[in-house]
Amino acid sequence: MNLHVVILAAGQGTRMRSALPKVLHPVAGKPMLEHVIDGARALLPEGIHVVIGHGAEQVRERLESADLNWVLQTEQLGTGHAVAQALPHITGADQVLVLYGDVPLIRVETLRALVDQAGSQALGLLTVLMQDPTGYGRIIRDDQGRVRAIVEQKDASAEQLLINEGNTGIMVLPGARAADWLNSLSNHNAQGEYYLTDVVELAVAGGVPVEVAQAQDELEVLGANNRLQLAVLERGWQAREAERLMTKGASLADPARLDVRGEVSIGRDISIDVNVVLEGRVVIEDGVIIESNCVIRDSVIKAGSVIKAFSHLDGAEVGEQCDVGPYARLRPGTRLLTGAKVGNFVETKKTVLGAGSKINHLSYVGDTEVGSSANIGAGTITCNYDGVNKFMTRIGDGAFIGSNTALVAPVSVGAMATTAAGSTITQDVPDNTLGVARARQRNVEGWKRPARQAKPE
Amino acid sequence: MNLHVVILAAGQGTRMRSALPKVLHPVAGKPMLEHVIDGARALLPEGIHVVIGHGAEQVRERLESADLNWVLQTEQLGTGHAVAQALPHITGADQVLVLYGDVPLIRVETLRALVDQAGSQALGLLTVLMQDPTGYGRIIRDDQGRVRAIVEQKDASAEQLLINEGNTGIMVLPGARAADWLNSLSNHNAQGEYYLTDVVELAVAGGVPVEVAQAQDELEVLGANNRLQLAVLERGWQAREAERLMTKGASLADPARLDVRGEVSIGRDISIDVNVVLEGRVVIEDGVIIESNCVIRDSVIKAGSVIKAFSHLDGAEVGEQCDVGPYARLRPGTRLLTGAKVGNFVETKKTVLGAGSKINHLSYVGDTEVGSSANIGAGTITCNYDGVNKFMTRIGDGAFIGSNTALVAPVSVGAMATTAAGSTITQDVPDNTLGVARARQRNVEGWKRPARQAKPE
Amino acid sequence: MNLHVVILAAGQGTRMRSALPKVLHPVAGKPMLEHVIDGARALLPEGIHVVIGHGAEQVRERLESADLNWVLQTEQLGTGHAVAQALPHITGADQVLVLYGDVPLIRVETLRALVDQAGSQALGLLTVLMQDPTGYGRIIRDDQGRVRAIVEQKDASAEQLLINEGNTGIMVLPGARAADWLNSLSNHNAQGEYYLTDVVELAVAGGVPVEVAQAQDELEVLGANNRLQLAVLERGWQAREAERLMTKGASLADPARLDVRGEVSIGRDISIDVNVVLEGRVVIEDGVIIESNCVIRDSVIKAGSVIKAFSHLDGAEVGEQCDVGPYARLRPGTRLLTGAKVGNFVETKKTVLGAGSKINHLSYVGDTEVGSSANIGAGTITCNYDGVNKFMTRIGDGAFIGSNTALVAPVSVGAMATTAAGSTITQDVPDNTLGVARARQRNVEGWKRPARQAKPE
Repeated sequence: MNLHVVILAAGQGTRMRSALPKVLHPVAGKPMLEHVIDGARALLPEGIHVVIGHGAEQVRERLESADLNWVLQTEQLGTGHAVAQALPHITGADQVLVLYGDVPLIRVETLRALVDQAGSQALGLLTVLMQDPTGYGRIIRDDQGRVRAIVEQKDASAEQLLINEGNTGIMVLPGARAADWLNSLSNHNAQGEYYLTDVVELAVAGGVPVEVAQAQDELEVLGANNRLQLAVLERGWQAREAERLMTKGASLADPARLDVRGEVSIGRDISIDVNVVLEGRVVIEDGVIIESNCVIRDSVIKAGSVIKAFSHLDGAEVGEQCDVGPYARLRPGTRLLTGAKVGNFVETKKTVLGAGSKINHLSYVGDTEVGSSANIGAGTITCNYDGVNKFMTRIGDGAFIGSNTALVAPVSVGAMATTAAGSTITQDVPDNTLGVARARQRNVEGWKRPARQAKPE
Repeated sequence: MNLHVVILAAGQGTRMRSALPKVLHPVAGKPMLEHVIDGARALLPEGIHVVIGHGAEQVRERLESADLNWVLQTEQLGTGHAVAQALPHITGADQVLVLYGDVPLIRVETLRALVDQAGSQALGLLTVLMQDPTGYGRIIRDDQGRVRAIVEQKDASAEQLLINEGNTGIMVLPGARAADWLNSLSNHNAQGEYYLTDVVELAVAGGVPVEVAQAQDELEVLGANNRLQLAVLERGWQAREAERLMTKGASLADPARLDVRGEVSIGRDISIDVNVVLEGRVVIEDGVIIESNCVIRDSVIKAGSVIKAFSHLDGAEVGEQCDVGPYARLRPGTRLLTGAKVGNFVETKKTVLGAGSKINHLSYVGDTEVGSSANIGAGTITCNYDGVNKFMTRIGDGAFIGSNTALVAPVSVGAMATTAAGSTITQDVPDNTLGVARARQRNVEGWKRPARQAKPE
Repeated sequence: MNLHVVILAAGQGTRMRSALPKVLHPVAGKPMLEHVIDGARALLPEGIHVVIGHGAEQVRERLESADLNWVLQTEQLGTGHAVAQALPHITGADQVLVLYGDVPLIRVETLRALVDQAGSQALGLLTVLMQDPTGYGRIIRDDQGRVRAIVEQKDASAEQLLINEGNTGIMVLPGARAADWLNSLSNHNAQGEYYLTDVVELAVAGGVPVEVAQAQDELEVLGANNRLQLAVLERGWQAREAERLMTKGASLADPARLDVRGEVSIGRDISIDVNVVLEGRVVIEDGVIIESNCVIRDSVIKAGSVIKAFSHLDGAEVGEQCDVGPYARLRPGTRLLTGAKVGNFVETKKTVLGAGSKINHLSYVGDTEVGSSANIGAGTITCNYDGVNKFMTRIGDGAFIGSNTALVAPVSVGAMATTAAGSTITQDVPDNTLGVARARQRNVEGWKRPARQAKPE
């Protein structure tokens, strides 16, 4: 079947009160329109046509891709008019599926069902059962359950108002009829717009069957016209994602307090505490425990590791059985090998920490390669930056970096070498050697403490 | 119209189980009574009379203000009695509006509507449509919709129990009648109290019209008698505030996880992630991004700045295009100029950081003026305190403070000056000069690591 | 009355998708089965018999206790069969109470009411009124309100389907009848299992009275078969705990954002901000304020102390009027005496901080005893570990540790002694003495900054 998808994305979204075009507002960290495009792609259509208007340049620039055909609607004259702009770009279509750039939670399964139900001869209509259909067009069916019309709220009789099956606006046009129908639409209505919905009337009048698929819930056909609705979509998306993860075997301390913005894959028996944010591509392997209040972005956490409270990972790879946090910040290029440990108030960047090595307290370690079983003392700073250049620090297996050591890169500390606490290490320390760079202590007896000074002025 | 407001705030609130008088318990960081007083003030009345009793001294001390008349109710003999205590202080009133110190979410618009509806001749009654009116007095109306009576739960017929319009207790007494009515109240009831509600009966009996205004929702007339109800008010207030911010153009990742305690003003297209707390006066300009888990108090954040996760700002001013956090703590007197950056595990206090300057890692910078384009290395500590006095540190434009530098104030580091990593700087470093204060490194070959010692005992 | 409790805990819980036996999955940090066992213990029964099967060894090992009799059910042939396995271990019982290892929120009061209602002669049945009883067995009563039968969903008439009183499966068997009844059960049903519920039919047929107690809400009889239901139980438990704390006099900024996993005891007028996690045994005394985003485990916080945002306490004792955080991490063995202060990015471990002493900024203090009124400067590190041994640091009353000091243990700094900023202290500093160990500063004029280097390759 030759399927084309038309996505309407030209609206202004005034009620968003934003400089950003409406369809670029994000849900789960991704523009609404991109959600819709991704859904369309999953149907493997012959073409995807995105009708843009307000903020057209911005939309196109943000989502440009070889598989998208951008159609400019210079005037916004209604949904029917919008689809009509795309038609000239579509040839030989069996089906034309119409989606909306601000209805991002539509499920691929729902679209598949609609497309299958419609086939190439019928008009396919996606409807939804609603708690409160006020304001929505109602689906009027005959005794055989066939759709006869869509009646708008203002035109509905008291009896029709009780119908809780509403029109979603999502539909499949038979390719052979689409052009005729769209050309027949009239704008003789209060808004002076061409409404796509009116094709239902044309189909019924023309004896074309109307086939219906129903959305699973109202959320997947909900659009966002303001930020309150955007927040409803966001929480709806998150609830869906939390359910997905729990079904796969994750224990969530509070499904309402997990935020996933990206693609998270999980192993078995993982546990995520409250108030965790996962962004980008995150891989969490078997048995991983993520404590409360962690932010994790584009990272891999291997089996059996624990990420303690208040940790912040970005572009990090945490090996098996590692222990991270609390208050650990792993920046891009951090790689912890098996059993490594990064503790509180520690920042790492472009650093490999060897198996079983530890940076337990208050340190900054950047552009560094640490061997296995090394111990980096509290207050260690790698001075990797001279103001213009960055340099490497190398620390060997089993090395012991004393507390409060400054390592002035480029520098290396050898295997089983030691640096004395409080040293500023500017030269390499060979294997099995102690590097010390500190002044001898003097005690000044009877030293007089400073007195309180008069405040200036 | 000469309007006086009487606020009842004498109750004990035993079920709060608290040493704090009930009306001082906070909602959104502000005592409940203060919310009510602020609402009253917005009506620009001739006088505001606060009837206090339990914890009178504490209440008065906390909220003392020239525009408030404090009325002591020595015995708590009911709402009617409480209002009667205030009457002697009120002369020439057209209207006496009665509010409650433990009903803090009442909207000013609602009060205005009630006052307008009542005028000077009628009794004005605020009612509310309730999901479940059990326990509330029901509003009995006649065929013309005029209020005839309020019937208490225990006295209501089966039919009357179905009425879902409840009495809120908030009312406007016509000034000319107030004294007569209150003097006519009886305490011949189970509680032996004088009920303000009984004036409705007096009005109807006396042919005085009863005019009604309805609250927008139950929340605005809900009182707090225990901490469960207090929490309901708190969340209700926060939901209202979240809606206000979204309507103005803020994107909230989760409206249920924002806490605002104070006055927040926002620009366009700001974005606030989950679990943020805003306190006091906070100004957030256009395009600002606030990441998850930030606490921000009494601060200004200018256009285009990003406050990353886990940051804590108090009394800070963040200039345009700044980059703060994660885990940055800006204490009072911190001022970041355009494009400045404060990174992780950094604390600043009474410090100006010049345009484009950076303090990226693990530093304490206090009582300091930093010029523009300076770089403060990791582990920098300003030693601003000698145990009794605080001293200033000055760092010039383009200066480079090496990592792990201690700056012993008072001290200055000149423009384009440098301090060597690991130095303790006790004397000024002139412009374009390197200050170094560290020991030469020695390497001790074949150094023997400490052996495990026997544990004492 | 001789009461025995049988707890069914043999199920596999396939839908948990877990290597952990279902009944060991935690609610509020404690295995579901342990909740049920603790509930059983509160009834002071003669015996508690836990029927285990899937993962039997793991379950037993985790919860082994002298007062538990473990019964192995090698094949899972239904609830009736499971109880039958336990019967041989029970002699002389008046009552046999049947509970479920995956129904952890059952209240002790509810069980007491059921046991009291049943007595030794009747069959006691726990039922529950349900919003939506679909799928549950309905309780069929006669005109006198006596239970006549339990009808399963599939066997129920249209009229019976409207009954909203459901069977919970929890029941009390009269000791004298239990064996007979269980032996009479048949497995001639679709599942081929022996159903405990069928004893109701036997009781009615045999003229044994069926006495009913009702659960307070559905939550307490809800079981967890997958992680979605587990999360519902978790939030239900937390809501109950939040209500308990508020009723006792705690103010919670958001009852839905407090997590308690353990036993928390609170004083009067404490205040807990959003997103706090309390674990293990936590004691919070009068007037304590806990700010947002704190994690507190196994700690005591005495009257009047404030724990600021982002603090992490584990095994700590915080004295009266202390000031902790933000971003303070108190590890096991930390003891703060009255009025002590630990500030941001500070880690303590096995450390006593004397009355009024302060560690305000970026420090690691471990294995240390600090006297009273001492001031530990920013960036202080106790070097308590030489790679194999840990050593003590002692700091006297009124001592002043300069910023960026490394204290190489074992070492002591005397009363009113001072260390100079940037010193590495390796020898004891006597009372009233200044210890200094740093290099003299040199200024190198006209120092040439590093130039940008060509990137390698």
